[in-house]
Amino acid sequence: MSEKKFVPAWTNTPPLPGSYRSIVKEGRQDQIDVPSNKYFWQLQKDLKLEDDFFKNKQDGNQPLGPVPPSRIDADVLRQLADIAGEENIQVDDYHRVQYSYGKLAEEMVSLKRGVLHEVTGAAVHPRDKFDVQRIVTLCNEKKVPIYVYGGGSSVNKGFLPQKEGITLVLNTHMNKVLEVNELNHTCRVQAGCMGPQLEEALNNAPEQFHTVHRFTNGHFPQSFELSSVGGWVLTVGSGQASTYYGEPANLVLSMEMVTPHGIINTSDYPSTATGPRVMDMLKGSEGVFGVLVELTVKVFRYMPENRKHFGYIFPDFDRAVSAGREVCQGQFGLPAIFRISDSFETDNAFQMYPQSPVVEWALENILGYKPGKRCVCLGTVEGESDFTKLVQKKIAHIARKHGGFPTGGGPAKSWEKDRYTSFLISEAISDYDVIMDTVETPVKWDNIHTIHDSVMAYAHSVPGTTCFGHMSHFYPYGSNLYFIFGVKGNVQDYVNYRTGLVDAMVKAGGSPSHHHGVGRLMHPWIERFLGKEEMDVLRALKRHFDPNNIMNPGYQLGLDVPEDLKR
Amino acid sequence: MSEKKFVPAWTNTPPLPGSYRSIVKEGRQDQIDVPSNKYFWQLQKDLKLEDDFFKNKQDGNQPLGPVPPSRIDADVLRQLADIAGEENIQVDDYHRVQYSYGKLAEEMVSLKRGVLHEVTGAAVHPRDKFDVQRIVTLCNEKKVPIYVYGGGSSVNKGFLPQKEGITLVLNTHMNKVLEVNELNHTCRVQAGCMGPQLEEALNNAPEQFHTVHRFTNGHFPQSFELSSVGGWVLTVGSGQASTYYGEPANLVLSMEMVTPHGIINTSDYPSTATGPRVMDMLKGSEGVFGVLVELTVKVFRYMPENRKHFGYIFPDFDRAVSAGREVCQGQFGLPAIFRISDSFETDNAFQMYPQSPVVEWALENILGYKPGKRCVCLGTVEGESDFTKLVQKKIAHIARKHGGFPTGGGPAKSWEKDRYTSFLISEAISDYDVIMDTVETPVKWDNIHTIHDSVMAYAHSVPGTTCFGHMSHFYPYGSNLYFIFGVKGNVQDYVNYRTGLVDAMVKAGGSPSHHHGVGRLMHPWIERFLGKEEMDVLRALKRHFDPNNIMNPGYQLGLDVPEDLKR
Repeated sequence: MSEKKFVPAWTNTPPLPGSYRSIVKEGRQDQIDVPSNKYFWQLQKDLKLEDDFFKNKQDGNQPLGPVPPSRIDADVLRQLADIAGEENIQVDDYHRVQYSYGKLAEEMVSLKRGVLHEVTGAAVHPRDKFDVQRIVTLCNEKKVPIYVYGGGSSVNKGFLPQKEGITLVLNTHMNKVLEVNELNHTCRVQAGCMGPQLEEALNNAPEQFHTVHRFTNGHFPQSFELSSVGGWVLTVGSGQASTYYGEPANLVLSMEMVTPHGIINTSDYPSTATGPRVMDMLKGSEGVFGVLVELTVKVFRYMPENRKHFGYIFPDFDRAVSAGREVCQGQFGLPAIFRISDSFETDNAFQMYPQSPVVEWALENILGYKPGKRCVCLGTVEGESDFTKLVQKKIAHIARKHGGFPTGGGPAKSWEKDRYTSFLISEAISDYDVIMDTVETPVKWDNIHTIHDSVMAYAHSVPGTTCFGHMSHFYPYGSNLYFIFGVKGNVQDYVNYRTGLVDAMVKAGGSPSHHHGVGRLMHPWIERFLGKEEMDVLRALKRHFDPNNIMNPGYQLGLDVPEDLKR
Repeated sequence: MSEKKFVPAWTNTPPLPGSYRSIVKEGRQDQIDVPSNKYFWQLQKDLKLEDDFFKNKQDGNQPLGPVPPSRIDADVLRQLADIAGEENIQVDDYHRVQYSYGKLAEEMVSLKRGVLHEVTGAAVHPRDKFDVQRIVTLCNEKKVPIYVYGGGSSVNKGFLPQKEGITLVLNTHMNKVLEVNELNHTCRVQAGCMGPQLEEALNNAPEQFHTVHRFTNGHFPQSFELSSVGGWVLTVGSGQASTYYGEPANLVLSMEMVTPHGIINTSDYPSTATGPRVMDMLKGSEGVFGVLVELTVKVFRYMPENRKHFGYIFPDFDRAVSAGREVCQGQFGLPAIFRISDSFETDNAFQMYPQSPVVEWALENILGYKPGKRCVCLGTVEGESDFTKLVQKKIAHIARKHGGFPTGGGPAKSWEKDRYTSFLISEAISDYDVIMDTVETPVKWDNIHTIHDSVMAYAHSVPGTTCFGHMSHFYPYGSNLYFIFGVKGNVQDYVNYRTGLVDAMVKAGGSPSHHHGVGRLMHPWIERFLGKEEMDVLRALKRHFDPNNIMNPGYQLGLDVPEDLKR
């Protein structure tokens, strides 16, 4: 690999304070990473990007331009200050913009170009749930829209203040782990608690909560460092280890939500035959019913010492999928992390992390794992030590049966190391007109190949793009497909491509999202997927909880999307 | 044990056709069992029943007396016949009564005494979901109440035709297993399919559906032989093996429900981040939203050859509970059946199945397992063979640690043999004025003893009664308490005692039901348990799905209970 090859002038210093870039990097100002040369050259080849293409960098390191003024009534602002304290109300431009943007590629690219969309009227940092109750009452009375910023990691404009109003920021004060109940294996936590805070408290429960054992919540989304416990549940997300621990929707035992209609505070019984469970109706509500303030979540013994890593190469996607299915349908326990890359992602990985020529040659010519066909699978097993040994052994047996060649735990360990920061690379690349993002859908074992083929057929039909995929969440009854794509061009080019991908996904029978949620991004597809009858139920609940439509109003969840935007 | 001791003249022949008793024994006309002498003498002693008490038998073997005439409009009846076929409409007294009664002790005792409560206007047997659609449309138009009889096993008057109307009987025609999808590990089934029909089809899937493997649904409630798949889900029941397989609410992947508002037909993805899941809102709706017509349920490999049975005696309830908790919180897999009897039930068991005097003496005096203290635990493990071996070994280890003495698999096997028919005994006893029944609640590990003590304090404060309990469904976060009680007296004595037990249970923090549901029995407690806010949500959904209140109207789920009946 020649040292003379072109490399762009990546921005590899912290963002300038007060800049657009600083808002883009909210929550990770200090995390700096740029694409490796290898990765860049690969992408440059895939997208056919001339060196000249990298003349214009737009990294957003300029100070904020003009921001539309807040239209919040001065009297309302005064009352908000009376409730939450003057110091917890922000109406300056920077903070208003900061709390109006999530982490969608489209949003970040627009920001770096200095293009603003809707901006909240005020950022309000409630001190506790009683502040929230008073704020919801006030806003309901005054018909002021409320948006909620948990950790700010939404990738679907889930808290975009489409109708202005105010934005409640929950991770400033309402971020505490309130109780670890060792007997019940539960933890009571405020909705604004961030992933690392929760996990740190649980891992250190003996020191912090006088428990005998250490615990984990078992929920590790890629947004772990940037997302809040409340957000996990309200968006019905999924985590990297959810195959074993369950999804956040199943990890929650009770919720307290402040709605304009009143306060819902559910019991934390794991099961009760007392009618439809209202708590379940709040899951996935993405802020349209009320403000989630507190949760009781499940916890598990923290036993990292028992964790096993595994990895296999399969001859093709079909055989990898079959092995994955057999693992998840085997009644011997499930792996925690479990991922199968399709052949495109596998080829990418091999180019980014090339093996020695001998290994590469042997793999291809002796063992028969051909580029363009072979698929990598990796994962971990967690639990008691004899259990992890058993599950690892069973997986090995099944993998072998389907032509899997063991790679050892190395790839899983490498992947684990970068799992929360790999998106920094895409972020760096988007300083130029290359936008990378993802779309994802649940699949059933009997439609995974149809959906994968349909999406890839569209993906590869558009020049100047790249797309590859993997499965990363498994059930005995199906899995998910996660597509990572890159587009050479401007925001509109990216939007067009993304739309094409989702169209292909949904037309082939997929859902608009497996774990990212709907927000204001997937709303064109939601009614097509759920059907009018289900949408009517959601709208009925919306009317019940929030008759004045102050909670996260404006297209969210597709509740009030105009007909002409529906696909 | 002297042969001269008194034994009542049990009715041990099949019920006379057309009699009240025949209705009581609906679904099990041929199943005849009477209490063993040992059991009877024990009960006689506990309840202080003189031999004279057994002079008056009221076994309901008399023909039906007068039944209030049907008030269904002749025109509606004609239209119903046009829809479902003349042969599928029954308006004769016997069938109208038959399909109006469930299996609540109170109902069965009343019937045997010839006392009728509400009776449906007509029993209608729809042939398929399209019949149901047309019937719901017609009844909504004409404001005719619809009650649904699935398998008829309700123990809370869940389909009592409180407002007359008609009763749809689903297990006559709509009882088919439609598809076994081996790849997806799912099964599509009509809502009126009974437990044994489903299980038989799944166990014989290779012959019936050309699958490679045999399957099981893993759901085995005590009502298995008398209940329908739809009922399992709509009442959010629980099964004997649910600790491992999950509860029916978690075993269902999609539902099709015909409501007056329209047809809900949800997707069968195991997970999708597309807002609150409407399917979850239908679970537990106990017939008040619409008629469930079809479901997709999860299935599991059927591997009875790997099943392991285990049993232990613990020195006391506290230690048995601690062992149970540790088993369920251990991250090595869960047992399938798992039961812990309290000391009262354990003493009962020892008296009904006495051990040899030597064993009994050694158990008590050498090993220290004292009557009045000791508790029996039994269960099974299912899954792949190395998994069942591992789980059994881990359970043995934990049991030993908490002072458990292994009894081997014998007690679990005996229990398994009688598990669906043990209630026949209570049925026989209720030919006299002794009424046996059950109440049950979820518990958390940190309130199980409080609830158990409170219920027992009340239970043992009332003369002429007996009460004992067990835990039979386990979660890492808690379990359930199931109380079996007997009352000497008439229906009102029984109602008073049951009310006292539920009061004690709910006041101590329990819920009105862990898996029997609410129906028209637990409605006085439901609002106290859920709170007004949650009840308002259920009422909002009710208004949405069923604006004319034709679906199972009248107290069901406590939706419209007058204030003075609330506790």
